[in-house]
Amino acid sequence: MRLIGIVLAATLSVGSIQLSQAQEVSVSKADPASESWNEITQVLLQQQEAWNRHDLDAFMSGYMKSKDLTFFSGANERQGWQETMDRYRATYTSPGHEMGKLEFTDLRIEVLANDAAFVRGAWHLTMSDGKKPHGLFTLIFRRFPDGWKIVHDHTSAAE
Amino acid sequence: MRLIGIVLAATLSVGSIQLSQAQEVSVSKADPASESWNEITQVLLQQQEAWNRHDLDAFMSGYMKSKDLTFFSGANERQGWQETMDRYRATYTSPGHEMGKLEFTDLRIEVLANDAAFVRGAWHLTMSDGKKPHGLFTLIFRRFPDGWKIVHDHTSAAE
Repeated sequence: MRLIGIVLAATLSVGSIQLSQAQEVSVSKADPASESWNEITQVLLQQQEAWNRHDLDAFMSGYMKSKDLTFFSGANERQGWQETMDRYRATYTSPGHEMGKLEFTDLRIEVLANDAAFVRGAWHLTMSDGKKPHGLFTLIFRRFPDGWKIVHDHTSAAE
Repeated sequence: MRLIGIVLAATLSVGSIQLSQAQEVSVSKADPASESWNEITQVLLQQQEAWNRHDLDAFMSGYMKSKDLTFFSGANERQGWQETMDRYRATYTSPGHEMGKLEFTDLRIEVLANDAAFVRGAWHLTMSDGKKPHGLFTLIFRRFPDGWKIVHDHTSAAE
């Protein structure tokens, strides 16, 4: 499961430094200084903050609220915003479960068009029993009148 | 592992029918009649045919031949065309391994821009011992002077 991690102040600082470096050396095909790049970063940061305060509704606002949203995990495909929400709720907020502490690393945002982008990254979860599930995610973002939203999420975990 | 499957004549026929239906009813944000959509379909079909005849070099021509290619599987990230090729070779063509028979289903190509697209799909592998590993994949395509190429592949399997 990709579950956007807790962003500590230190991580935020590193993120800002990386952005500045990318702006200077233009290491990516995408224009990292673009408004799109910044807006997508904000969506992800807001998701992370929402997860951190265990606010699943706010976390889910990063996803397109549509039956066309898709979420791939392992060999399972979930179709639609509500099904994705229900699965998050069952997996992380039901009795006996916990949301844990999460971090993401290696976040790479590539803007493909004025209204499309994709994001690669890794997630690291730390649970209260010391277990540390982790894995990778790929996100497709589209721009809507109310901002950039994830339209497809492909998450995988250590096998 | 996403490994493009064998495309039987029957499957090709179904694919053509689906394309025709999509053209008529415009079910996707992408324009399924577009040249881009058709070109990406051809890349995938050519990969499938290459896999079917156990021609890994031809199969790999569907990927961007660059160190910037990324391949996510489970919690493992492979960087670059050569590493991806080496992993395919070790996993499927070394002694004691086999490529098996593959099918893909639920192929959905969404063109995001003149030079960008993403593809969602499921893969089904049938091995000689009867095992049937399967899973999902997400591909990011970019258009280059020599055609559309996969620049990022995220594959996951049944857990």
